[in-house]
Amino acid sequence: MAQVIAERKDVDFVLFDQLNVDSLSKDPHFAEFNRKTIELIVTEARNLAIKEILPTQKDGDEIGCRFDNGKVTTPDSFKRAWDLFKEGEWVATHVNPEWGGQGMPHLVAMAAGDYFCGANFSFMMYTGLTNGAASLIENFGTDKLKKLFLKKMNSGEWTGTMLLTEPEAGSDVGRLTTSAVKNPDGTYSISGNKIFISSGEHDLSDNIIHPTLARIEGAPEGTKGISLFLVPKIWVNDDGSLGEFNDVVCTGIEEKMGIHGNATASLTLGGKGQCRGYLLGEENKGMRAMFLMMNGARLHTGAQGFACASSSYLNALNYARDRVQGRNITATAKDAPAVPIIQHPDVRRMLMTMKANVEGMRSLLYYVSLLIDKSHIAKDPAEKATYEALIGYLTPICKGYVTDRAYDVCNLGMQVYGGYGFIKEFPQEQLVRDCRITMIYEGTNGIQAMDLLGRKTVMDGGKAMMALAAEMQKTFDQAKTFEPLKPLVEKAEALLKKLGDVAMFLGKNLMTGQVENTFAFAYTFMEVLGDAIMAWMLLWRASIASDLLAKGTRKKDEKFLDGQIKSATFYVRNVLPITHGKIETIMDNCCSAIEMDDESFGAK
Amino acid sequence: MAQVIAERKDVDFVLFDQLNVDSLSKDPHFAEFNRKTIELIVTEARNLAIKEILPTQKDGDEIGCRFDNGKVTTPDSFKRAWDLFKEGEWVATHVNPEWGGQGMPHLVAMAAGDYFCGANFSFMMYTGLTNGAASLIENFGTDKLKKLFLKKMNSGEWTGTMLLTEPEAGSDVGRLTTSAVKNPDGTYSISGNKIFISSGEHDLSDNIIHPTLARIEGAPEGTKGISLFLVPKIWVNDDGSLGEFNDVVCTGIEEKMGIHGNATASLTLGGKGQCRGYLLGEENKGMRAMFLMMNGARLHTGAQGFACASSSYLNALNYARDRVQGRNITATAKDAPAVPIIQHPDVRRMLMTMKANVEGMRSLLYYVSLLIDKSHIAKDPAEKATYEALIGYLTPICKGYVTDRAYDVCNLGMQVYGGYGFIKEFPQEQLVRDCRITMIYEGTNGIQAMDLLGRKTVMDGGKAMMALAAEMQKTFDQAKTFEPLKPLVEKAEALLKKLGDVAMFLGKNLMTGQVENTFAFAYTFMEVLGDAIMAWMLLWRASIASDLLAKGTRKKDEKFLDGQIKSATFYVRNVLPITHGKIETIMDNCCSAIEMDDESFGAK
Repeated sequence: MAQVIAERKDVDFVLFDQLNVDSLSKDPHFAEFNRKTIELIVTEARNLAIKEILPTQKDGDEIGCRFDNGKVTTPDSFKRAWDLFKEGEWVATHVNPEWGGQGMPHLVAMAAGDYFCGANFSFMMYTGLTNGAASLIENFGTDKLKKLFLKKMNSGEWTGTMLLTEPEAGSDVGRLTTSAVKNPDGTYSISGNKIFISSGEHDLSDNIIHPTLARIEGAPEGTKGISLFLVPKIWVNDDGSLGEFNDVVCTGIEEKMGIHGNATASLTLGGKGQCRGYLLGEENKGMRAMFLMMNGARLHTGAQGFACASSSYLNALNYARDRVQGRNITATAKDAPAVPIIQHPDVRRMLMTMKANVEGMRSLLYYVSLLIDKSHIAKDPAEKATYEALIGYLTPICKGYVTDRAYDVCNLGMQVYGGYGFIKEFPQEQLVRDCRITMIYEGTNGIQAMDLLGRKTVMDGGKAMMALAAEMQKTFDQAKTFEPLKPLVEKAEALLKKLGDVAMFLGKNLMTGQVENTFAFAYTFMEVLGDAIMAWMLLWRASIASDLLAKGTRKKDEKFLDGQIKSATFYVRNVLPITHGKIETIMDNCCSAIEMDDESFGAK
Repeated sequence: MAQVIAERKDVDFVLFDQLNVDSLSKDPHFAEFNRKTIELIVTEARNLAIKEILPTQKDGDEIGCRFDNGKVTTPDSFKRAWDLFKEGEWVATHVNPEWGGQGMPHLVAMAAGDYFCGANFSFMMYTGLTNGAASLIENFGTDKLKKLFLKKMNSGEWTGTMLLTEPEAGSDVGRLTTSAVKNPDGTYSISGNKIFISSGEHDLSDNIIHPTLARIEGAPEGTKGISLFLVPKIWVNDDGSLGEFNDVVCTGIEEKMGIHGNATASLTLGGKGQCRGYLLGEENKGMRAMFLMMNGARLHTGAQGFACASSSYLNALNYARDRVQGRNITATAKDAPAVPIIQHPDVRRMLMTMKANVEGMRSLLYYVSLLIDKSHIAKDPAEKATYEALIGYLTPICKGYVTDRAYDVCNLGMQVYGGYGFIKEFPQEQLVRDCRITMIYEGTNGIQAMDLLGRKTVMDGGKAMMALAAEMQKTFDQAKTFEPLKPLVEKAEALLKKLGDVAMFLGKNLMTGQVENTFAFAYTFMEVLGDAIMAWMLLWRASIASDLLAKGTRKKDEKFLDGQIKSATFYVRNVLPITHGKIETIMDNCCSAIEMDDESFGAK
């Protein structure tokens, strides 16, 4: 079978060679996940993804979700795929078995998700949001709520969403006006309008469970007065049976650039005064709870964007091998034959850029999944805290930086196809359109950059960044033992050192009142940190590949392994000089964007 | 009226302050185009564009072109707009009045086109291709053909296309197989299949005139055996009346990512053996003729991409001024109000990036139009040759570099809108989709980069690049007379000097047999040259703005003029360091993309 979606050899390389996923099975928590089991899981996921989910991708785009009189219909092929997905028990892969999950390591779930998201991420959003909603119940729900909701959600019988956005409250969640009034029975009456609700209404499940941010009457203004409620579409009776319609009305779905397979719903709650919800967690502590879900969602968003990039790369690679066009540029004979375009230098430049980025992103996303697993099983609180700091610090990179690069990769993947890339008959243009949303939702990438610089870099005296630098240095020390990698590592180390200077520089500027100007460089800071992390991941891969090549134990993988060294070489030498240029712009601290009069941007 | 599409003040600034368009009227050829006339033309174009064409943009996207049984139907609103466009005599603005054109300077036509393309570039493609086809007839047609076709085409009664691509002959035109057989009457019987034909079939005109590349029986292989023919959809009798259907059958149109308003047709010529064409120019010299049209089309493509960027910027700017979300980042009071998002540093970064790029691109495209005008009226052959060298050299930049930056700008324009940017209700996502094709058609941007480095940089001992450098230096010398610009100019000069080194370096590598590896840096070279040209254009603007501010004669424009200095400052300090990083990658000359084994890209 041709490699589509994700190169299996690469998935295995990251799981087993780079991250040693099977070592997790030493912990009783993951005892059953030995290498053989993990390989089987990935194989099963890959088969289901390629055979059953990938064929729904075009339907999702072309038929899309249809809205009629409050109901949303998904494409027919989605129903079959959803049934198979549920039957295969893929809905709650990494969830606690106590609540109906499979208890897999996050890292293994990530590898499975690599295939699923790549097959059709609009479809996978129905699951992804269900996981997020269920995790809120698991973390903040009462025993009653857990029993009422979790198993049904984790089996996919019911699905979930996340109701934050309102027309006047997007990035600025504190402006939301949906209201909650406590009832004598302890439930709350909810009333308000929510927009941009992914998976907000559809026909794949019997019930839809909406964690909802709302404001209890008399609560403080802004984010400090926001509470989290659990609002089912159909009320769930105390015996678990479905009760009455809970007055959550879908008033329409958005026409979008992409992800047509997922309904982006506008919902009116309590239009007839009949909408009830359960409080999740404490009153006025809704934002804290929601952040837990959002962090997971941000990592998931990175994975979505990445999946588009991985598919786009493999499509482009296959196309470049098949498409015959133009003579080899070094051919001298007048009748030299046309060659596959993979032989053309500029096509190789594009493919190599895609390859290095896809590999770096895969390693990063898998690595963060491993950190999540390690943080769950860590006994030592300090160790656990370090894992959590790393996860928190890398989250805006996985969302903001990765989706930017993923979009770049998808655009290159379109470019390799030439004119065919723009045509709907081929997969590349849909990948560009679908990928584009990942830079926007779950907090725009600009918001990620602000989070990275303004909160996470300066928090706890820069502890997270230092922990990251220490991890990077470990890899560099290892990689340096391979002579050919040494000059590359030295460049990466020089960048790492500079990153420290940049963080100090920005921190000092923040402290000395240059707040606006400093934040005007938040995005550039995210980019340079992201580049450094990619270089780290690629050198890590190259180091392992060098080791395996030296051992000579994997003859059949020699070209793959050499490709790892080539990717790292390409990245370090073709990207890091540009990263240094970006650092220079930060240190130059130009203020013109901030100082310019608003009117100078142009006439109203 | 709010500024949409293009900021009028900026259009006028480039026309009158930067490029002194009215000085063209000193030449008898353009005598009637004084400032007042030019202002009137731009005003008329702007009115028509905003009032009549812009409203067709959504129809073009949503209704699009419909194919049914060989016929293509455009949206109804296109017909009205087309009639008004024809009535206003806008079809052939810069064309020789002898053949029904308006004889405008290209520069004035460009300013009018700035508004027209921004209003709906899918719609404008019907005109653009007609101009290109007519120019082929004007340059290579016999008197008979000129008389038969030109006035009808220049009035818009008939439209034109360009038939190059076949399924196996895209970038590699030499592989085309459409055949031509000479008939006793001197016409040729044409037979073959063409794809990706923009404006290839539609219902806006009575006839469609197809300049067609085909191979005469027995002609040499490759590009040297290609001839150009004029193939009308409906045969034109010698008295100018329409004759029989000429067996040019539309077999379908493509479903595309964008530009749905323009039919991308598949055409079968001579399926019933009834298709005839006239030879244009000499046998086997078709490519040379076609290149003339392609160069014009490439500049036009740059203008299309740019127009999307200009619209996207103004939309984003207006949105950022209106959208209230989040407190000012420097606000300390707990109850600080939410502010328009233009106050947020990261939004300002995006807007400033868009502004600087839009301004630089506008100046560049207008400047090249001016060069075309100057080359037409130049008496001195050496002067004329210099203009032509500059035009040729800047063409791949106007196409390849400009459309890349335009797409970046459109993506930023979507990002400023947040979630609303992804929704079809708002204009930003269509601009992203429409803009995307400009990076692909008329020669992919990779092809542009190869043309720039492999042909135009090394041609004639690097004469064109030297001529460009001399023009840049003139501006720098002028700009340096303004003290505050001096440090910026010094940075631009340093870059210019380095560019010379880079060109030498690449040229030497080409000469010494490193052909593949050198071309792997063609794209980066296009980027760095493009960055330098943008810096040049922005410093030119800043220099003029400084002069006007010093004179104090334009009080009401002070903020606009200060905005010019800010754009140049922003660009030089935030982009050029990255450009230097790119140069470093070229000089480092990493070979990993070329050297890597094909198999290492991944398994088949």
